[in-house]
Amino acid sequence: MRIGVFGTGVVGQAIGAKLVALGHEVRMGSRSADNESAATWAGEAGPQASRGTFADAAGFGELLFNCTAGLASLDVLRTAGAENLAGKVVVDVSNALDFSQGAPPTVGLGNADSVGEQLQREFPEARVVKTLNTVNCEVMVDPSLVPGEHDMFVCGNDESAKADVRSLLESFGWPANHIFDLGDITSARAVEMYLALWLRLWGVAQSPHFNIRLVS
Amino acid sequence: MRIGVFGTGVVGQAIGAKLVALGHEVRMGSRSADNESAATWAGEAGPQASRGTFADAAGFGELLFNCTAGLASLDVLRTAGAENLAGKVVVDVSNALDFSQGAPPTVGLGNADSVGEQLQREFPEARVVKTLNTVNCEVMVDPSLVPGEHDMFVCGNDESAKADVRSLLESFGWPANHIFDLGDITSARAVEMYLALWLRLWGVAQSPHFNIRLVS
Repeated sequence: MRIGVFGTGVVGQAIGAKLVALGHEVRMGSRSADNESAATWAGEAGPQASRGTFADAAGFGELLFNCTAGLASLDVLRTAGAENLAGKVVVDVSNALDFSQGAPPTVGLGNADSVGEQLQREFPEARVVKTLNTVNCEVMVDPSLVPGEHDMFVCGNDESAKADVRSLLESFGWPANHIFDLGDITSARAVEMYLALWLRLWGVAQSPHFNIRLVS
Repeated sequence: MRIGVFGTGVVGQAIGAKLVALGHEVRMGSRSADNESAATWAGEAGPQASRGTFADAAGFGELLFNCTAGLASLDVLRTAGAENLAGKVVVDVSNALDFSQGAPPTVGLGNADSVGEQLQREFPEARVVKTLNTVNCEVMVDPSLVPGEHDMFVCGNDESAKADVRSLLESFGWPANHIFDLGDITSARAVEMYLALWLRLWGVAQSPHFNIRLVS
């Protein structure tokens, strides 16, 4: 599949590399076409990897990954262009972390909104699926880094988009019976607000390679 | 021990009954001394159980449980009286759930505050420990309702208060190695914001008898 990845940070690089390793063609998008991180990544990732602007990546991809910082994501997708998003699955793995008051950051957009909802509202023709934001980027693409059983969540309004994302997650190594559908895109606020607990659990686990499991 | 319990709802009743069963003397506090729920509870719970106003319960208890609705808790503790809280461990198990816009409720006090912090700020001489709010009230006092290993969290500024609460939690059945200290009282916002995910996981688990486990 041709996949566009927004964001050149560690998350975008991890997702992009995994997608290339799985045989997809990946274009990494950034604000300017000559972004150094993207150039380095594309050079190392091989012939199936390319780079460009957000709009280039969005136009290229049949499916898109938002790996930008959550507080910038709405602006990034505007730059990518609504016409390049329409009808496409947009996998939103972002978190809105605000470090302006120091660490630990405040998390999310409050308790009545989320980046996932914000993107879906602004781009009603995109098929936004929130997932993967509840784990470290290395765990996103290699869940076996966390031993034993642990869980992943998907949120979104479009059932077939969620099914497509489930398949992708399974190709990343997430077992089908540990991917839980939390509901429509308003459930994105649940997984985004969870990041506040994730940050504290990181301190307990003493490693970013952890996750939670639903026990019932 | 003599323990005061604020709140006559299902949470206060579950906590109060457990404490009585463990041999503590428990006074349940409510806004008016003739609250019917408290009267019924005290009648059924036996001679170690009594009831009164919030101030009565606060004055009676050597340790206090806040089992009121999170959005009302600050007002409840003001009614109980700062002089009745000073120096005491206040176990805050509340959640701020706002149903004014319908269900599901919005959760918490935003992303930069929590009920736990609010109470500790207003009553600096109280020793507030946030815990138990991450599970259903039946699970709070009987963690074996959820099979297998799962975790509980404590948050607070006072180490000896957290140690006291750990002992209480162990007496409720929580294994010592599954009680994690998340840090000072600012970590209360992490466990309060988690409730948004908890509400969605309830839908997945199809039962309120569930919890999460940290896997690392």
